[in-house]
Amino acid sequence: MDSLKFDHDHENNSHIITNPLNPQEFRRHGHLIIDFIANYYQNIEKYQVLSQVKPCYLQKLLPESAPYHAEPIETILQDVQKYIMPGITHWQSPNYFAYFPSSGSVAGFVGEMLSTGFNVVGFNWMSSPAATELECIVMDWLGEMLKLPKSFLFYGNGGGVLDQMLSQFGRDKIGNLVVYGSNQTHSVLQKAAQIAGIYPKNFRVIKTTKSTLYGLCPNSLRATIQSDVQAGLVPLFLCATEGQDQLQEDQEQLQEDQEQLYEGQEQLQKEYVSHLEIDLRQKWKIEKHGDDEKQDHNTNTPFEFHPIGPLCEVAKDFGIWVHIDAAYAESAFICLEFRHFIDGIEGANSFSLNAHKWFFTTLDCCCLWVKDPSALIKSLSTNTEFLRNKASDSKQVMDYKDWQITLSRRFQAMKLWLVLRNYGVANLRNLLRRHVKMAKLFEELVGLDSQFEIIAPRNFALVCFRVLPSPKGMDGYEKGEAKQVERANELNKKLLESINGSGKVYMSPTMVDRAYIIRCAIGATLTEERHVTMAWKIIQEHADTLLSKY
Amino acid sequence: MDSLKFDHDHENNSHIITNPLNPQEFRRHGHLIIDFIANYYQNIEKYQVLSQVKPCYLQKLLPESAPYHAEPIETILQDVQKYIMPGITHWQSPNYFAYFPSSGSVAGFVGEMLSTGFNVVGFNWMSSPAATELECIVMDWLGEMLKLPKSFLFYGNGGGVLDQMLSQFGRDKIGNLVVYGSNQTHSVLQKAAQIAGIYPKNFRVIKTTKSTLYGLCPNSLRATIQSDVQAGLVPLFLCATEGQDQLQEDQEQLQEDQEQLYEGQEQLQKEYVSHLEIDLRQKWKIEKHGDDEKQDHNTNTPFEFHPIGPLCEVAKDFGIWVHIDAAYAESAFICLEFRHFIDGIEGANSFSLNAHKWFFTTLDCCCLWVKDPSALIKSLSTNTEFLRNKASDSKQVMDYKDWQITLSRRFQAMKLWLVLRNYGVANLRNLLRRHVKMAKLFEELVGLDSQFEIIAPRNFALVCFRVLPSPKGMDGYEKGEAKQVERANELNKKLLESINGSGKVYMSPTMVDRAYIIRCAIGATLTEERHVTMAWKIIQEHADTLLSKY
Repeated sequence: MDSLKFDHDHENNSHIITNPLNPQEFRRHGHLIIDFIANYYQNIEKYQVLSQVKPCYLQKLLPESAPYHAEPIETILQDVQKYIMPGITHWQSPNYFAYFPSSGSVAGFVGEMLSTGFNVVGFNWMSSPAATELECIVMDWLGEMLKLPKSFLFYGNGGGVLDQMLSQFGRDKIGNLVVYGSNQTHSVLQKAAQIAGIYPKNFRVIKTTKSTLYGLCPNSLRATIQSDVQAGLVPLFLCATEGQDQLQEDQEQLQEDQEQLYEGQEQLQKEYVSHLEIDLRQKWKIEKHGDDEKQDHNTNTPFEFHPIGPLCEVAKDFGIWVHIDAAYAESAFICLEFRHFIDGIEGANSFSLNAHKWFFTTLDCCCLWVKDPSALIKSLSTNTEFLRNKASDSKQVMDYKDWQITLSRRFQAMKLWLVLRNYGVANLRNLLRRHVKMAKLFEELVGLDSQFEIIAPRNFALVCFRVLPSPKGMDGYEKGEAKQVERANELNKKLLESINGSGKVYMSPTMVDRAYIIRCAIGATLTEERHVTMAWKIIQEHADTLLSKY
Repeated sequence: MDSLKFDHDHENNSHIITNPLNPQEFRRHGHLIIDFIANYYQNIEKYQVLSQVKPCYLQKLLPESAPYHAEPIETILQDVQKYIMPGITHWQSPNYFAYFPSSGSVAGFVGEMLSTGFNVVGFNWMSSPAATELECIVMDWLGEMLKLPKSFLFYGNGGGVLDQMLSQFGRDKIGNLVVYGSNQTHSVLQKAAQIAGIYPKNFRVIKTTKSTLYGLCPNSLRATIQSDVQAGLVPLFLCATEGQDQLQEDQEQLQEDQEQLYEGQEQLQKEYVSHLEIDLRQKWKIEKHGDDEKQDHNTNTPFEFHPIGPLCEVAKDFGIWVHIDAAYAESAFICLEFRHFIDGIEGANSFSLNAHKWFFTTLDCCCLWVKDPSALIKSLSTNTEFLRNKASDSKQVMDYKDWQITLSRRFQAMKLWLVLRNYGVANLRNLLRRHVKMAKLFEELVGLDSQFEIIAPRNFALVCFRVLPSPKGMDGYEKGEAKQVERANELNKKLLESINGSGKVYMSPTMVDRAYIIRCAIGATLTEERHVTMAWKIIQEHADTLLSKY
């Protein structure tokens, strides 16, 4: 490329900048940008939720090279409005119901600004003690809100369950490691597994069906593990997930999953490690003491099916590391009426939550509780003269660099602290309940329309539904009539494209068994009842138009 | 822990919050916080650069639990000032000279605010086309500023050098992979290697000495690789680094390194992969055409020692992937007078830069250019129904989820775009030159004091020096008199503790060979000449006090 234009540093620079962190400039630009974003939230409903631009739209609009001279912030903001905004898919829109929420908040934003303002690199305690210590405190606060056992908390008594298994196996066992997943999570889990060096041939995809509610049955799991152990293999990792809301979660949780895997791999010469995920399918409606086949879809008695306890029992028998990832729903567990979903958690080794999804904390903020942090530290700690300091040497402090892969680390705790304090436990609970209530409303609206079907029971604030080509559509599906299934899938795909193309709402699809499903995830901070009822009206209108063509 | 206080949701909530993203609240809190941070920058010199708090200081100051009711932002900001500020190590202070710069800027901050405000999760093109497209454009802009060959740019012609080597080796070769490093980078590189599943026995630490200027000699490297290949092993990764400014960089670059490794591992069944880092030791002063032993420490003719070209030649002979990481200094390569440091880059496969260090972009912003992205995509792409969409299926767009480990992704390009536009190429070059000029000044000041020694030549804006117990201190060192060496190290350790303890400046240490060195890294945005001369005065004062006791 020709960059001759950069080759001569001529001095006729209209804007010579000597201090890019000038406090007066900071004040002026900062206030400008606050108003810009405040106006954005004020007018957010005017934008099409899903961006309707065509590929490479931006390349045609922006210059080929960076400007040689400085450009004023006002010009740049005009370009953000003119060129960037059309390419934004508005996750903060009250009409955003796709994938999972990315629920922003004023407190989260303010917290992010503070950590960006300080811009400290908190890789060890000394590099900014407040960053490390506030993180410990805030994790304990949230852990208490979730009623996690003390053993998960920094100021609790800690665990040590792994120590007795140290140095049992050799690193050369890596070829024997086995990862278990369901047919719902294949590609995702396999990415994690392969990155961690698991042989593809040792990746087990345990088939799940509607009859097993797309969830892993502990017994079949135990059987599979046993046969592998008999074959001299080492069970490393299990990820039991269900079709709809887990598919995304596995991917969202990939980083934590991988940290487990890296650790597992690194720890291999010391112990067996594995990972279990809670099957949200547990929330399927089963009669008390009912068997896998007997289902009652009208009651909701969670965890009669795959309670955490029994899962931990299986794990314990194989000396397996249990990681509980109840996915985006976890934040709801701060509400007393939902907490029982994680009863039995005391048997697990680690637990994770994405606060940047449904907890009003801006991207990104993954919380991971570990019973025995020494397992992480053993595998991830580094010590070079360059990083040595009295505090670390004194062993009185912890250095988060030893808990993670990278050295760099933002002041992450700040925004979570702001969210917890500026809203408080009571409001946070009520805000989550508000979303669940709206999801119930949406579910009821769908239920009232015989043209539609709730394909899977509602999990917290996620409703999975589809339109039926005919009232008989489902029979065809049940009887496995391929044509009927295909017709239903085609129809729902068209419906989703049609509503998303309108720019008025944005929802996303998934496949459950062979059925193409539409997911409505309620959790955007700005969403109110009126948006939910409007979304449903739009869906009905577009469905009517489509069905009239059939 | 007792969380009974949370067990009853009584309704007497003083602050009931129904919309945490209320635009009016956003405006009010946003303006408050802008003034808070602006004041912080205005008064930043009043704070002790290195936090002087004791371990667990914060636990004693904050409540044990999250508040049940909402707390006003004003109260929280008072607590930030009262409780958090003392625990901050002020990376933005003009008197911060430790580790590496974390150079913030108004434009970087504003960009971060915008991406936080939009709070989009840009895992694929469709989830916010602008996020993906702006990133491609900005990476090309910066690539052009660095004069990278077209083959590294999105809108260049791309590479494909790896294709011919596909499916040559089996995954079971993982036990044969060899990673090469120098004795300067051991613990760090080993962390990366182990996480990626490299057997510790296949981790080669090639000894470097002062006589080889702590840099890897291509010939000895070639010999080591050859003997491994003859032994049937597979060279995967080489990291050639030098003592001072690389130690940190290896750790900072860990993530990129690991991405290379993950990829390498995942690609193993397809190709040989390795990784070379440019040895900043190249910037040691060597006579033109001089051999390794002959040194002239008064001239500066870089790259007579380890030019990129020859390194790529070695790599090519072994079909090795070459990654160039010239570390924090890279941003200086946008200046014509420094660009020759990366002459020969066209022979490399990938190139990385940390814009969050010395490029006025807030944490975090790592830029990675890859000649053949298909190598990454082959190993890191996932495809589930949940993420499928017309745009991705059309293959007209790229999805960054396939370039990285995690799914979640912030709108990273925004802040880099703001920095490039709001400052422009001319200012960015001059700002970097200003830092180099100040480092030259500091180097001169040290050079004028016979009690001090520049232990390693200045690299860009990094000066490495130490105080000498006596003018004869160095002789002792040269003769390897352990006592002398120890005495010098003890003295410099005390000096560093003394100046850092004063809270007036903050510098960090490193070991070069057996010598304890003090590093002065100039790059904080607010640093001016007066801060550099003041820092030097402080060092002299503290040194005099210490030496008077000897």
